[in-house]
Amino acid sequence: MGNSLGKLFTTTSFGESHGRCVGVVVDGCPAGLPLADEDIQREVDKRRPGTGASSTSRSEEDRVEILSGVYNGHTTGAPICMLVWNQDVDSSQYLKNQFLPRPGHADFTAFTKYGGFNDFRGGGRFSGRITAGFVMAGAIARKLLGLKRIEVLAYTVEIGGIKAQPKQTDEIRENIEGNALRCADPAAAEKMLEAIERARTEGDSLGGIIETVAFNIPAGLGEPVYDTLEGDLAKALFAIPAVKGVEFGSGFSVATKRGSENNDSFTIKNGDIVTLTNNTGGILGGISNGMPVVVRVAVKPTPSISKDQSTVDMDKMESATLSIEGRHDACIVPRAVPVVTAMMATTLCDFAIRAGIIPEVLK
Amino acid sequence: MGNSLGKLFTTTSFGESHGRCVGVVVDGCPAGLPLADEDIQREVDKRRPGTGASSTSRSEEDRVEILSGVYNGHTTGAPICMLVWNQDVDSSQYLKNQFLPRPGHADFTAFTKYGGFNDFRGGGRFSGRITAGFVMAGAIARKLLGLKRIEVLAYTVEIGGIKAQPKQTDEIRENIEGNALRCADPAAAEKMLEAIERARTEGDSLGGIIETVAFNIPAGLGEPVYDTLEGDLAKALFAIPAVKGVEFGSGFSVATKRGSENNDSFTIKNGDIVTLTNNTGGILGGISNGMPVVVRVAVKPTPSISKDQSTVDMDKMESATLSIEGRHDACIVPRAVPVVTAMMATTLCDFAIRAGIIPEVLK
Amino acid sequence: MGNSLGKLFTTTSFGESHGRCVGVVVDGCPAGLPLADEDIQREVDKRRPGTGASSTSRSEEDRVEILSGVYNGHTTGAPICMLVWNQDVDSSQYLKNQFLPRPGHADFTAFTKYGGFNDFRGGGRFSGRITAGFVMAGAIARKLLGLKRIEVLAYTVEIGGIKAQPKQTDEIRENIEGNALRCADPAAAEKMLEAIERARTEGDSLGGIIETVAFNIPAGLGEPVYDTLEGDLAKALFAIPAVKGVEFGSGFSVATKRGSENNDSFTIKNGDIVTLTNNTGGILGGISNGMPVVVRVAVKPTPSISKDQSTVDMDKMESATLSIEGRHDACIVPRAVPVVTAMMATTLCDFAIRAGIIPEVLK
Amino acid sequence: MGNSLGKLFTTTSFGESHGRCVGVVVDGCPAGLPLADEDIQREVDKRRPGTGASSTSRSEEDRVEILSGVYNGHTTGAPICMLVWNQDVDSSQYLKNQFLPRPGHADFTAFTKYGGFNDFRGGGRFSGRITAGFVMAGAIARKLLGLKRIEVLAYTVEIGGIKAQPKQTDEIRENIEGNALRCADPAAAEKMLEAIERARTEGDSLGGIIETVAFNIPAGLGEPVYDTLEGDLAKALFAIPAVKGVEFGSGFSVATKRGSENNDSFTIKNGDIVTLTNNTGGILGGISNGMPVVVRVAVKPTPSISKDQSTVDMDKMESATLSIEGRHDACIVPRAVPVVTAMMATTLCDFAIRAGIIPEVLK
Repeated sequence: MGNSLGKLFTTTSFGESHGRCVGVVVDGCPAGLPLADEDIQREVDKRRPGTGASSTSRSEEDRVEILSGVYNGHTTGAPICMLVWNQDVDSSQYLKNQFLPRPGHADFTAFTKYGGFNDFRGGGRFSGRITAGFVMAGAIARKLLGLKRIEVLAYTVEIGGIKAQPKQTDEIRENIEGNALRCADPAAAEKMLEAIERARTEGDSLGGIIETVAFNIPAGLGEPVYDTLEGDLAKALFAIPAVKGVEFGSGFSVATKRGSENNDSFTIKNGDIVTLTNNTGGILGGISNGMPVVVRVAVKPTPSISKDQSTVDMDKMESATLSIEGRHDACIVPRAVPVVTAMMATTLCDFAIRAGIIPEVLK
Repeated sequence: MGNSLGKLFTTTSFGESHGRCVGVVVDGCPAGLPLADEDIQREVDKRRPGTGASSTSRSEEDRVEILSGVYNGHTTGAPICMLVWNQDVDSSQYLKNQFLPRPGHADFTAFTKYGGFNDFRGGGRFSGRITAGFVMAGAIARKLLGLKRIEVLAYTVEIGGIKAQPKQTDEIRENIEGNALRCADPAAAEKMLEAIERARTEGDSLGGIIETVAFNIPAGLGEPVYDTLEGDLAKALFAIPAVKGVEFGSGFSVATKRGSENNDSFTIKNGDIVTLTNNTGGILGGISNGMPVVVRVAVKPTPSISKDQSTVDMDKMESATLSIEGRHDACIVPRAVPVVTAMMATTLCDFAIRAGIIPEVLK
Repeated sequence: MGNSLGKLFTTTSFGESHGRCVGVVVDGCPAGLPLADEDIQREVDKRRPGTGASSTSRSEEDRVEILSGVYNGHTTGAPICMLVWNQDVDSSQYLKNQFLPRPGHADFTAFTKYGGFNDFRGGGRFSGRITAGFVMAGAIARKLLGLKRIEVLAYTVEIGGIKAQPKQTDEIRENIEGNALRCADPAAAEKMLEAIERARTEGDSLGGIIETVAFNIPAGLGEPVYDTLEGDLAKALFAIPAVKGVEFGSGFSVATKRGSENNDSFTIKNGDIVTLTNNTGGILGGISNGMPVVVRVAVKPTPSISKDQSTVDMDKMESATLSIEGRHDACIVPRAVPVVTAMMATTLCDFAIRAGIIPEVLK
Repeated sequence: MGNSLGKLFTTTSFGESHGRCVGVVVDGCPAGLPLADEDIQREVDKRRPGTGASSTSRSEEDRVEILSGVYNGHTTGAPICMLVWNQDVDSSQYLKNQFLPRPGHADFTAFTKYGGFNDFRGGGRFSGRITAGFVMAGAIARKLLGLKRIEVLAYTVEIGGIKAQPKQTDEIRENIEGNALRCADPAAAEKMLEAIERARTEGDSLGGIIETVAFNIPAGLGEPVYDTLEGDLAKALFAIPAVKGVEFGSGFSVATKRGSENNDSFTIKNGDIVTLTNNTGGILGGISNGMPVVVRVAVKPTPSISKDQSTVDMDKMESATLSIEGRHDACIVPRAVPVVTAMMATTLCDFAIRAGIIPEVLK
């Protein structure tokens, strides 16, 4: 259980890394949205392994197929099942190491929780590949939000300790897809790439931070006290493998700030109440305040490294040394960027439907 | 909507700061747990305003009353409704400033979302006082977890940029209630107190960081891919007003770490598979791995400060200056500590029931 | 668990028959609805034991108290907690018969499920008195539906084999509260009363059928394939103790009908598409079709009868004879009528909010 | 929305009658259950159109494919996606009559609710074919229940006013698949067949009643006050197209019974507390009492009849005559029998998992 997310715009995930497919069922998409395979394909392609310094070499075609919920080029109000079939799968390494849990991976916890029945090949349900389904759902969410001019951006702001300089929104929008790291600061991206290449050469990996921003979010989204905008966004973002932290607005830096510094003063601009600063990241009391919603997520270094690692043999219950073969992303951050976008969009879309901003039928 | 949390151990919150009461209904508590008003009272008292440097002066008796679900000193399996009646309430300041939203508070977003019908007195549903209900539910959760020797601790680790030194578990356990700041490092607590006093004198406030740890969590809790342990803990923690960040294990510092450094090697200890380090905070793939679950939450500086602040008059739609009278916590962090404990315990209890570790009837 | 109902208009029930109180938390009521204790009181009074032939003699004042969610005479968008305090409670008979489960009651199943920890006094959670909370929630739902001119009626159509004659809506509306049995056919009501009196004299009880109709339901409510209008209405109605059957439109009589007879032909009336007959009870494919929604529920004879009954002693595990003392409703049907109305209204209100017909804020 | 059912054993339905496929995702199936395509196929085949008097002629192969959640012949604890691809689909008649809603079908309500964007071909989401997915989920549920020796039977008890004689369980088990009507009384089945043939000849159709019984249900399943066994079973059963009534035990006949007659006396048998009769259908207070759970569902006559029918043209908003071509089931009852079994099993399985009777991992 635990594979469905959202209240009125609900995503149900299925599939395994080395099984037949990876997919998702989206329930609650309003009827009347123009939707074609290509709309989904475009987003899924973004998380495809590239050829750059940061990427693995699994060559997948990943052709998205919409199996239900679309007729005559429009959504029908029925559940939308979408999937990609798995190809190019070599499970031999996983079969060999079946009882050697990889440090930093879910091999041990999945083995324990599911009594050894879990499909461990390629990490099974815990593979980053599962997020292809997240991105499919996110692609629909983004189209829906777009109808209300809501825009979601995400980009790399730190890798291996190298921080990007803050950029204007226009620059961000322009630069994100301009470099392999999806970083809005091309100069920092250069240095990040070097650091990743260095780590890879040494059989190691790097982590980083992704920032995501949603623009044109109307004030009033969020359902406190428990279904806060922060809470549901965080829950969605922690579903992404490797995410270990989520913060909003000034985030953890609030620990060093004073109230007079951190409070955002209200003012009136073009007849609307806005804040002069946005330390709160667009959310007050768990409800959007009309300012951009700003979130940052911490992504841990890829646990798959080529250096030898100490582990145990779960079958023989003895110490063991694990050597992970093959190429793996030395830094997963850039490929996680479209997934962060997707989770952000999916959650905001659910709240927008709850608030009646996106109606049941689009005309 | 949005006032219920949890799947099998469900908490429904109700009440307002200046209404008749603040309370909670807990549904899903197993039958047969010994439970008395005092069990709840003890926990609720911890978040009561003290007389120390960091606290407000609202003198509330806050006598907890259990209204249902307990018979003959034991839980019955029926929903447990608990509440504290509100007393000592002076709403005059709030009535005067009804249309002047306080920066950093939910006044503006609540006004917008609920069309001005929200009970704004004392912050209404968005008051820290609502967390008294969270703590009531948490008190039951802690008793249930205790049956399985699961222990949840929380303590202040940073205030106003002053960091506590890491301490051993025994010291933490001993020191938490030994100082007004619930900090495991008494020396740091002294400095934090001075900083808070300084801020208060200047009409300002401070934020900080709380760490919470759960011990003896068995491997296997968590329901990925969406109902991860991280995700549901984060959602619960973001329900606490003023929380702006949540991180697990090495958290945001993963951005500066290498995989070889951040991965926790497996080893065998006393016949159990454990990790040598705990950078992952006891969670792999959204599932507990048997190590302590370690979480940190960022708490923003109290938005209520006595310095004048710029705001708007929502009725006249013009600029205004807000002067907040009365005493307010110059630092909410120590009072948030028992609430963090409560949300941690509540969420872990839900997962423990889902996993069948805590049965439907206790004998 | 299992004490919350509804997706966007959520009712959480709490309390016991002989505990401190019986109540409910309603989450998801739009802000801005004028609401006073009396609005709730009026409905709750309808299920109060009367002095007529069919009623018990427990004299309760049952003053409804709204504890939260209302400010300045309007709902605030926050959860509404309401309750009645228990009075006039004599538990001696229940204590004496603690281990003798009453046939037809939940004593045995509750004892088994909750390991004997259940509050058995007066039936505890399984008492008809719990439905006072259902009626409180229903009172709010009816007010909300009334804003859209949706009207819910319920009335007795059969007791002890005596069937009421069908009546016009105006007559129904007029007659329901005109007799002790809430029957739209006064002549039948006379005979029913005699039958009840006869059963009571013989230490026995009678069952019956209640019909409920909702008018002005717009076409389009219901969320198939699982959250059908029939399915969610039935689930809500089966929460009423003693209900053993639910049918829509021509119901079980479909087993004797032909398709040509049972199908409702479409036609156009005043520019709207309507059906000439309403065998389907206003629901097609789980979605309202704009015609009146017609439901009937079967209510079993009161299980509490004064005749001696065979049972077992659950403690000694031996046969026993049970003699139930005191006065009990010889027919619960008329007191169940307002509860049926409440469950119907509560469920329809939830669907109306889901469909966006009732907005988040009422202006 | 509304396409997911169940709390811990969750079924998400997708697909359309004339789309690419019909399928389901089952989340919450314990790990370690042996499962092969054939296990599902066997059940799905039962609802395949036959060649008998009562069936349509659509020749579908309906090969079930399990797409996820199974590895090495066992369930893994991951979501199980299953589907059948659609074949042999001629949509021409539906395209021709796109704006002529068929009486008794969901054409009008779906058109209204989804703004005309619904896939109307073959009834789309409202086709009986969707229940193939229900049966797939039910097949898994039955296997899980079987591990606890819980058995679910369903059989036709009435068609077109012809009632079957009650039979012993052994006879029922033996006779169900012995005739085209899945009726335990072969003599009645003969007459039913004749009646169906007669109706078909006259261009008409018949309804009926299906009874379903679950044996070896332990006492204690059900989560009152809202998640009662009756309520959740009824909700699941009303998801089956054409079901218009659900009753438990003595059902609607309670209206003619006295309490002394309808109450089931308790007694002790082989050391267990049982009831002498089973008028309550195995459920007291919404909780199973250990006796067989007995439910009956009313199935309306197939709305598709070859007789001309009056309807409207939704586009031109004028009266119209509808002539439905092709062969249709003159009585859907026998094909609904395996679907009733499936919904019964699915719901009971969910409750059994909630009660901890079926564990998270099967060893």
